[in-house]
Amino acid sequence: MGDPLDFTASCPIPIQQYPRIQLAHGGGGKLMHQLVERMFLKAFGDQSEEMRHDSAVLNMPAGRMAFTTDSYVVRPLLFPGGDIGAMSVFGTVNDLAMSGARPLHLSAGFILEEGLPMETLWKIVCSMRAAADRCGVRIVTGDTKVVDKGKGDGMFINTSGIGVIEHSLNISPASVRVGDAILVNGDLGRHGMAIMSVREGLGFEGTLESDSAPVAAPVLELLAAGVEIHCLRDLTRGGLASALNEIAQAANLRLLLQEKLIPVRADVHAACEVLGLDPLLVACEGRFVAFVPPQDAPRALSILNRGQSGGSAVCIGEVRGEIPPLVALQTVLGPSRILDMPSGEQLPRIC
Amino acid sequence: MGDPLDFTASCPIPIQQYPRIQLAHGGGGKLMHQLVERMFLKAFGDQSEEMRHDSAVLNMPAGRMAFTTDSYVVRPLLFPGGDIGAMSVFGTVNDLAMSGARPLHLSAGFILEEGLPMETLWKIVCSMRAAADRCGVRIVTGDTKVVDKGKGDGMFINTSGIGVIEHSLNISPASVRVGDAILVNGDLGRHGMAIMSVREGLGFEGTLESDSAPVAAPVLELLAAGVEIHCLRDLTRGGLASALNEIAQAANLRLLLQEKLIPVRADVHAACEVLGLDPLLVACEGRFVAFVPPQDAPRALSILNRGQSGGSAVCIGEVRGEIPPLVALQTVLGPSRILDMPSGEQLPRIC
Repeated sequence: MGDPLDFTASCPIPIQQYPRIQLAHGGGGKLMHQLVERMFLKAFGDQSEEMRHDSAVLNMPAGRMAFTTDSYVVRPLLFPGGDIGAMSVFGTVNDLAMSGARPLHLSAGFILEEGLPMETLWKIVCSMRAAADRCGVRIVTGDTKVVDKGKGDGMFINTSGIGVIEHSLNISPASVRVGDAILVNGDLGRHGMAIMSVREGLGFEGTLESDSAPVAAPVLELLAAGVEIHCLRDLTRGGLASALNEIAQAANLRLLLQEKLIPVRADVHAACEVLGLDPLLVACEGRFVAFVPPQDAPRALSILNRGQSGGSAVCIGEVRGEIPPLVALQTVLGPSRILDMPSGEQLPRIC
Repeated sequence: MGDPLDFTASCPIPIQQYPRIQLAHGGGGKLMHQLVERMFLKAFGDQSEEMRHDSAVLNMPAGRMAFTTDSYVVRPLLFPGGDIGAMSVFGTVNDLAMSGARPLHLSAGFILEEGLPMETLWKIVCSMRAAADRCGVRIVTGDTKVVDKGKGDGMFINTSGIGVIEHSLNISPASVRVGDAILVNGDLGRHGMAIMSVREGLGFEGTLESDSAPVAAPVLELLAAGVEIHCLRDLTRGGLASALNEIAQAANLRLLLQEKLIPVRADVHAACEVLGLDPLLVACEGRFVAFVPPQDAPRALSILNRGQSGGSAVCIGEVRGEIPPLVALQTVLGPSRILDMPSGEQLPRIC
């Protein structure tokens, strides 16, 4: 892989002596304290003086605050375009952003499986720190548990997050109105297909990288520009289909999408065809939909496309009417079909 | 066991149809939405209108706030005197209480193993709700992931918590002073030994129940009474030995305990002897130490003993001097010994 950093050499726990996580690293004794003091405090310690104690103590302004939690169980731990660590930061930052909140503080709860290589843990912890710096958030409190070999899967991470809400909008399905434009900030399905391609050995590794990325900055730019955001939703498990069906049902409104406007890259289409998957049901990790009044849509798109790397924001449809609450898809060939909520499990453990 | 509630009958997911958790319950599709809408919203939904969305939106006062996280991986899921659900609420409430914060809001992140009986999940979710009501906290946001059979262990729960700090003390090892009295709010080691007794089939099941309990209320009572609390620490993994060694090192002070004053029940002593364990290293889940000025100790003890059920608060020692930072134990027989931080892992997965 040609890593720019040698994680064996930089690991603050001596890898010769402790090549792998042991049960005692979660036991409350000397090994756990060594792990916390040397590794977690080295990675995150300058972010919070309180990390050594049971809770972080934060100074918060009065007003509305967003609070969210997510566990990450993605397999494999490292994949093209990301890893579980960066994803656990971006994902929770993105959940806060979907309320229009400015993300501030994260917690990190690790569930490690006995036998996890120490170097892997260090690599992922470094990736979390880099991701936190990129998002301007601080990892201020944490916890580590170790489960016996065969009772976990390398590592799971839970991150919870706190953000401040500085706008006065009610960003929720209840605010969606007939006529709203439905925007998406980039092409769909890359995260899920990048994971599947390495897991199934499909040979797409060269081209397909996860879209895993933080989206708080563009959302805050929309708000700063006065775009009247009605609703936001990130397109994780269940993809676009799941997110839009949730909103249609909660808002009791009918959404009409134009299939030809929905951005899906050719390599994602190809990978989906091999696996018999619908790209509109595949998870993304750096993509969201925004419902905005039609007159705000051009300005919103130009903000979302400004300086955007991997993909371009487009309008993919509009809110058409009241009942029945469903998502209709105008296909390229003419007839429209209903885009249903996925029923089963297409892609286990993609996040 | 003669459960007062029939969890099969009351389970809001039809158990005949879905007797066990499937991978699709974490997939973002219909089954996941059914689980969230019918089970989690039934249990917690009246606590937060925002639970359906990505984040909970909370109104917070300005000022100091405590933020903490903990994952729970205890085995077995149900044990004498508690279960993983109640423990996941009490444990995080207690972490907030150790900053002297008033616990307000919790998140709940579930990592379920494919095959977990639906009834078990419902039982544990109900227990979490009852525990939250007992503590006066609300579970306002959540997340569910499912991992394949053999890659988890029934269920793991992460709870993060937010509380407000209404006092102006700096409750931390840095505030500990020579002469401080070291108080403990009850007898030690029952949680760890209750878990071990069922796990090892020791036959202590009849007598030994976990001490799992919330301790925020007594801490807030101490603060309300004006007791000048210098430091608090709950006695979880690593027990009294680990907690006091952490404080001694962080404060750079020497602590002297009187062995004969440390409350350990006879049945806990007996179970520890069978397993070759030191009760001072065994985890509790409803016990904490408080460092207070000697003149405040009698008042603090009388508050802690007022209305206390399972155990009595006592003074077990004092802060004796500066270097070396260690914990000394004056034994019943006369000589004193050093109570060291546990080195290895005595009791895996007791929390």
